[in-house]
Parts: sequence; C-alpha cells; structure tokens
Amino acid sequence: MTRWKCVCAYDGGGFSGWQSQPAGDSIQDAIESRLAAIFKVPVRVHGSGRTDAGVHAFGQVFHFDADWKHGPVRLAAALAQRLPKTIQIVSARKASSDFHARFAAKGKIYRYELFLGDPDPFTRPYCWSLPPPLDVRAMVSASRILVGRHDFAAFAALRGNEPEEGADTVRTLRRLDVRARGRRIRIEAEADGFLYKMVRSLAGALVSVGQGKLGDADIRGYLASGVRTAGVQTAPAQGLFLVKVLYR
Amino acid sequence: MTRWKCVCAYDGGGFSGWQSQPAGDSIQDAIESRLAAIFKVPVRVHGSGRTDAGVHAFGQVFHFDADWKHGPVRLAAALAQRLPKTIQIVSARKASSDFHARFAAKGKIYRYELFLGDPDPFTRPYCWSLPPPLDVRAMVSASRILVGRHDFAAFAALRGNEPEEGADTVRTLRRLDVRARGRRIRIEAEADGFLYKMVRSLAGALVSVGQGKLGDADIRGYLASGVRTAGVQTAPAQGLFLVKVLYR
Repeated sequence: MTRWKCVCAYDGGGFSGWQSQPAGDSIQDAIESRLAAIFKVPVRVHGSGRTDAGVHAFGQVFHFDADWKHGPVRLAAALAQRLPKTIQIVSARKASSDFHARFAAKGKIYRYELFLGDPDPFTRPYCWSLPPPLDVRAMVSASRILVGRHDFAAFAALRGNEPEEGADTVRTLRRLDVRARGRRIRIEAEADGFLYKMVRSLAGALVSVGQGKLGDADIRGYLASGVRTAGVQTAPAQGLFLVKVLYR
Repeated sequence: MTRWKCVCAYDGGGFSGWQSQPAGDSIQDAIESRLAAIFKVPVRVHGSGRTDAGVHAFGQVFHFDADWKHGPVRLAAALAQRLPKTIQIVSARKASSDFHARFAAKGKIYRYELFLGDPDPFTRPYCWSLPPPLDVRAMVSASRILVGRHDFAAFAALRGNEPEEGADTVRTLRRLDVRARGRRIRIEAEADGFLYKMVRSLAGALVSVGQGKLGDADIRGYLASGVRTAGVQTAPAQGLFLVKVLYR
C-alpha cells in the first residue's frame, strides 16, 4: 500500500461541504466514489480539514492509501476522469507512510472575497456583495489587533453536535490582510489552524468595522472576552476559499 | 409608451442562447417573462444581436417599449428581482423613440478566453482550455492580417435555416488583440459588426496558428478565398464574451 497526497480545487456551490454525508453529496463523497470505481474496493480519504457547504477551495489536501502501479500523473488523471467538473485534481504524489493530511498540517491560508455593489454573474457566486461604502482603513486597523496568538473563541462557532468545552481555542493568526482593488475587497488569513467558522467570523467582524458598526475597542473587547456574541456576524460561505494547506 | 434601453450581463452556460426559443430557455425568454410579470401584458424585447447557446455577456443591450412611471433605477430593480441569478441587469435608461438596440449599433467588442493546461473550476466554464504551448507571437502576427475591411465569409458559418446567398459579408475589423498573461491568452475583437460565429472562427483560426497548423499565408489565403473551409475551426462557445455594444 502506498500513501498518496493529493491537492484539489473545487467550486463548493453545488456541494454539502467537504465531509462525507449520508446523502453522498459532499466533495469527499465524490472523490471516494471515484476511488472506489478505480480500485474496486472502498478507499477512505482523509482531508486536511472540513470546509462547510458552499465554501470553495483552490488547494484542499487529502491523502489515502492504495496500491497503484502507474505513477502519480496517471493516478491524478484517473481520479479526475469522471469527477464532477466543479472538482479539479491539481496534483497527486507519493507521500511517506506517516504523512497525514490533517495532523501534519502546519497552517492554512484562507481568502474571503467582498464585493461592493451588484456583482456580475461571474463574480456573484464567489463573493459576499455589500452596499458601498466600506471603510477599508478601519478594517485594516482592526485586522492588526487580531493578528497574533490569541484565544479566538469569540470568533468561532460551536459545531452542532460536538462538545467544545475545554477545547483549545488559542490559535496563532500569522497574517490578516485586507486589500481593496476597485470594488473588490479581499481578506486573506494565515494561521497555524482555524476554529470552526473562524475565517467567516473574522470577515463578518471586519465588515461590521468597515460599516462603522464596530470599532477597534469592540474587537479588543471580543477578543478579551473569549465569548461569542451576536456582535460578531458570520460572513456567508460563498465568499470563502481555502487557498493552501501548509506542511513542513 | 417610453422606449427603454437596458444593458445586461449573463453567464450563458445554462441558456440556449440570447434569442427566444420555443422551450423558453433563452435569456430573452427570461427577460420577457419578467417584463410580462411587471406590466401584465406581453412585452417584446429587441437585443443588439443574438449570442449563441453557451456564449456569455458583460454588456448585451436590449430595448423595449413600456409605460413605467417610477424611473429607470426602480425599473432595473424590478426587472432584476426574480430573474435567474445568472442574468444581471447592469443598467436601464430612457432612450429616444427611434433608438433600436440592433440597428443603432455602430460596433461591438467581443472577448475570447483561452487557457493553457487544466483550468481550475472557477475558470473552466469560461474558457477554451488547450494543451500548451501556443505560439502567441505567431498569433499576434496573424491577427494583424485580419484587421481591416475584408470579406470575412471564410470566417463565418452559415446560419441553419437562413439563406445567406448574396448576404453582405464585408466587415471592418477595427481591432484584433492577442494578449498572454500567465496561462491565459485573451483575444479581443472590435468590428462594425460580426458575421455568424465570426469571433469563434477567428479565435479558432488563431489557435491553429498558435499550434503551428496554420501560417500567415493560410490566413491570407482564406481571407482572399471568401469560402469557409475545414481549415478554419470554430472555437467552443463557452470561451466567448460579448463585452460591449457601441452606439453613437
């Protein structure tokens, strides 16, 4: 058995998220179904982490174990062959037997796309559209407060049926960039790991700052409180992209 | 009755083209059905021209006549309200009673998008993906031959059930730009008017040039012959965008 590491991109719009679902409509389901067709046995896929329904990816990483004698290029081609066109296999390569897509990850980069006004039909499914204006300088200022090693509990959501009590909610946010270009505003976040809905909560809070509803003091207060409140909104899934998973 | 001029954008992927179809699955059908709901009577829409099934638009123009007392902004909003999200009403404004979206057009700008290699799921539906490499300099050279006032019959297709005999196939191609940026190659064409499938034929021919299958002499020969041959391929619809319709 060889361990294979794959990178994939997907348009999350038509899926119930990364993780396998009873209805079989997740990205993991689509990939596992292709692997089962290739190898004639069930093959379990392990992703670097979940992405929620509607969230997109340029560089999600997963691994699986399988006997395959024809090299990585033909494996990637075989995998891609009857996948939905909204999933792309970017690369496949052999990994060491102790590589684990989730546990070996040293960090992740996410991107959140905002659009001021009415987006065209090519942009609309991939952004959060907001009425102008947004105070980008205020957003940049608030983003600087958030960067660093903090308890991000105030910027995370409880996962439905998982006990979070006592869970470690301290993360190191290495980077939180806010960049405006025309009517697009892009938020890019890099951390050693992200809590559930953390990027969408950070994006939601920064938008509230840009709209003048929250100030630096509020952001500092939320961060210190360690408690999620209604003051922090969750940005919609369709603006979020998993850009890259970082390994050593 | 007031004549209204509207600009719209659409993702052509899910439509049978601009022009009204018996199945009602065209962009014109979707817009006319919204207008009928607003005005409680059938309203005929006149586009600047057809776009084929799968072709996209940033700036298609259409006009219609209707009594509306609430101004252009609210008309655009009403029109947009229950349209498919893949159609955007960019603007609406009053036009003079003799304005005609098709007959008043002085020119059009189209764009054709090529992609070298395997495009990600966000690019794939909006380009023609080709195996690298393409000789972009050769494409630029061939494009210069095509610019100007010529009989473009060799770069047009016969429309199914329309007699084209004796039709005027002379057009002035004002601009045919080929620009590479990374793995994307963009062809942009501006003319006083385009023949049926002309942009896709020009793009198809330029790709053959980029692949070394055709040279400048072939392009000159086709142009002079005035006859469409198998040497000129038609690029797929999904890479084509109607960018702008030009009026005086």
